[in-house]
Amino acid sequence: MKIIEGGVTAAQGFEAAGAPAAIKYQDRKDMAMVYSRTPCKAAGVFTSNVVKAAPVKWDKEVVAHSPYVQAVIANSGIANAATGKQGYDCCRQTADKAAGLLGISADAVLVASTGVIGSQIPINRLLSGVEKLVESKSDTIEAGTLAAEAIMTTDTVSKQAAVQIELDGKTVTVGGMCKGSGMIHPNMCTMLGFLTTDAAISKELLQEALSEDVIDTFNMISVDGDTSTNDTLVVLANGMAGNTEITTKNEDYYKFKEALHYVNATLAKKMAGDGEGATALFEVKVVHAKTKQAARTLSRSVIGSSLCKAAIYGHDANFGRFLCALGYAGVDFDPEKIELYFENEEKSILIYKDGVAADYSEEEASQILASPEVRVLVDMHMGDEEATAWGCDLSYDYVKINADYRS
Amino acid sequence: MKIIEGGVTAAQGFEAAGAPAAIKYQDRKDMAMVYSRTPCKAAGVFTSNVVKAAPVKWDKEVVAHSPYVQAVIANSGIANAATGKQGYDCCRQTADKAAGLLGISADAVLVASTGVIGSQIPINRLLSGVEKLVESKSDTIEAGTLAAEAIMTTDTVSKQAAVQIELDGKTVTVGGMCKGSGMIHPNMCTMLGFLTTDAAISKELLQEALSEDVIDTFNMISVDGDTSTNDTLVVLANGMAGNTEITTKNEDYYKFKEALHYVNATLAKKMAGDGEGATALFEVKVVHAKTKQAARTLSRSVIGSSLCKAAIYGHDANFGRFLCALGYAGVDFDPEKIELYFENEEKSILIYKDGVAADYSEEEASQILASPEVRVLVDMHMGDEEATAWGCDLSYDYVKINADYRS
Repeated sequence: MKIIEGGVTAAQGFEAAGAPAAIKYQDRKDMAMVYSRTPCKAAGVFTSNVVKAAPVKWDKEVVAHSPYVQAVIANSGIANAATGKQGYDCCRQTADKAAGLLGISADAVLVASTGVIGSQIPINRLLSGVEKLVESKSDTIEAGTLAAEAIMTTDTVSKQAAVQIELDGKTVTVGGMCKGSGMIHPNMCTMLGFLTTDAAISKELLQEALSEDVIDTFNMISVDGDTSTNDTLVVLANGMAGNTEITTKNEDYYKFKEALHYVNATLAKKMAGDGEGATALFEVKVVHAKTKQAARTLSRSVIGSSLCKAAIYGHDANFGRFLCALGYAGVDFDPEKIELYFENEEKSILIYKDGVAADYSEEEASQILASPEVRVLVDMHMGDEEATAWGCDLSYDYVKINADYRS
Repeated sequence: MKIIEGGVTAAQGFEAAGAPAAIKYQDRKDMAMVYSRTPCKAAGVFTSNVVKAAPVKWDKEVVAHSPYVQAVIANSGIANAATGKQGYDCCRQTADKAAGLLGISADAVLVASTGVIGSQIPINRLLSGVEKLVESKSDTIEAGTLAAEAIMTTDTVSKQAAVQIELDGKTVTVGGMCKGSGMIHPNMCTMLGFLTTDAAISKELLQEALSEDVIDTFNMISVDGDTSTNDTLVVLANGMAGNTEITTKNEDYYKFKEALHYVNATLAKKMAGDGEGATALFEVKVVHAKTKQAARTLSRSVIGSSLCKAAIYGHDANFGRFLCALGYAGVDFDPEKIELYFENEEKSILIYKDGVAADYSEEEASQILASPEVRVLVDMHMGDEEATAWGCDLSYDYVKINADYRS
């Protein structure tokens, strides 16, 4: 597997664009397009929130019933959620407009929105934006970057990743971009992720690979425990790499899945580390758990704790908070038998063992917590399963961003 | 039911004390005692956290197996959690010391701690503190207040409540004090609650009344979603009111339960409104839900959302966040059918209906959110059940307090 530059335009036959449409933000790009020159198999995973944004309803229909997909139109600024019939019509008009300009069918167009809930999108600006996107689309790496920038809301950096693998002598590329922070516990300003690949793979296996991989990537990050109405992750596969189509779970399938996993995990970590107001990426790895599910639940509980997050922000080795968050996760264990370690890139120190604080240096522990990437390792001593969750610290800026978000 | 002044010393035969012992805090009271001149029936509810503090383990034993209880010794500053055998010995020594000075049995003494997890309590200071408490105990209202002040950690005000009812011609009093913020989602610095009553009631019914009432009072508040290792709520009943002992669920039982509920609900709301860094009490009432459990789950989901809490702090009528938090609660409903209202003491305005924003004034909505007590009313239009949850807003000060808590 080779890590390469780029994002959604890394795979063959994909183009992208980013353009300003003044949906809500002024003087910046706020619309993006991903386009494939040839029809794609599409798979997607969407928010579990009962309140679903209009584009989520539209996309679920398209992914389930359209014979192929060829374009995605996304906007930032307004989420098009809690917008009733008018909101759904807005999706339809967007798809119609893009379809007309691109010479494809409207049911081959996915739409996505992120931003404030409850406002209607000014439809004329949106449709003008679609024109600009179609005019400016290109298959360059730069075009992919423009698209990645256009979907940002409170993100501080754009997020892309791409890798290449070989499948029966052909180079297959998987690339993607995303914004926001998560699928299970995303930031309200929504996780949107768009993956592209030139792999030839059946729609069923594409969906299965995506659905499975999300469990240990996007579903293992949390910024603030709020699951958005708009969360969307879609993958488009246009088959242009020319590999023999993957239709069974053969070696090629697992190679493809590994590439997909790399892109998903990389994007997920980028989102966690860029959580609103974050000063650090906060990783929790639980090892030797009894079951995989227990490992996931425990690691997610710590990552989601406001008090643990505030302790990271304060560089305060207040290990009791981590222990406490493990304790209320809903998984049974013996607190006397587990071990906690604080880790960064350079070192690992034992913090808690045998039911009491270990003999560690407060100064050294605090130094570790001041690293840009902080890891808490939890050894359960109960089995062989492990899981990793990613989040970020809780800072003044999180409150500032969210108390002022609409203004 | 008559609301009266006072707290744990309001009921007949109860004494209390608060004293400085320099456990961790300097120059303030940090130890409290509640004492009954006669033996009490005791009932308790304790943290659901797998990691339980030593005093919780001690108290569970005492409540389950001791024939009677007569005293509670509490300290603030150090939680005596993650302290192993030494921590449990500390509980035993405290009970022995108090028992010796009070002339009662050690297994009639409950202990409670709140503060930092993972540190050992300096036992000599704790035992000297017990001496001071026993010397200064008194049945005055002021003594109850001293005790309520001594158990505070990051609380900004002490919390007490008391009421009187009549049971077969006798005046029965129920009073209590608490600190911290909740049982299901308490602040890490722990919810401790101590209730006293002179009612004569069987131990079984005392426990049942407490366990049931907690569901709609202390379990319906949340400050930050972190369930402490130390949460404890105990009630002592010494029977001195002289009413006929309540041994069946007769009219007296329900009158007593109503009094208990008033004290619990009052203390719970006081805790929620005094959540760390809070500038407002945030109440969410869900009406016309299909089931009681659905109403509880929905209201708790909103109260626990960081984004809703930040919106209250910012006085931002960003109603989509409230809708979103309802949507991910795990309860099924039709977003087109529900209504949201923002309310304060003076008015109620419709914010969301028929799947879209109602025609409300942003200025008026923002004014309501700037009230010291903000209520969000959610009408589900699905049935007849309702529930109310209480929390607080999320401010810079929450982060400040928790990033710096140990220093």
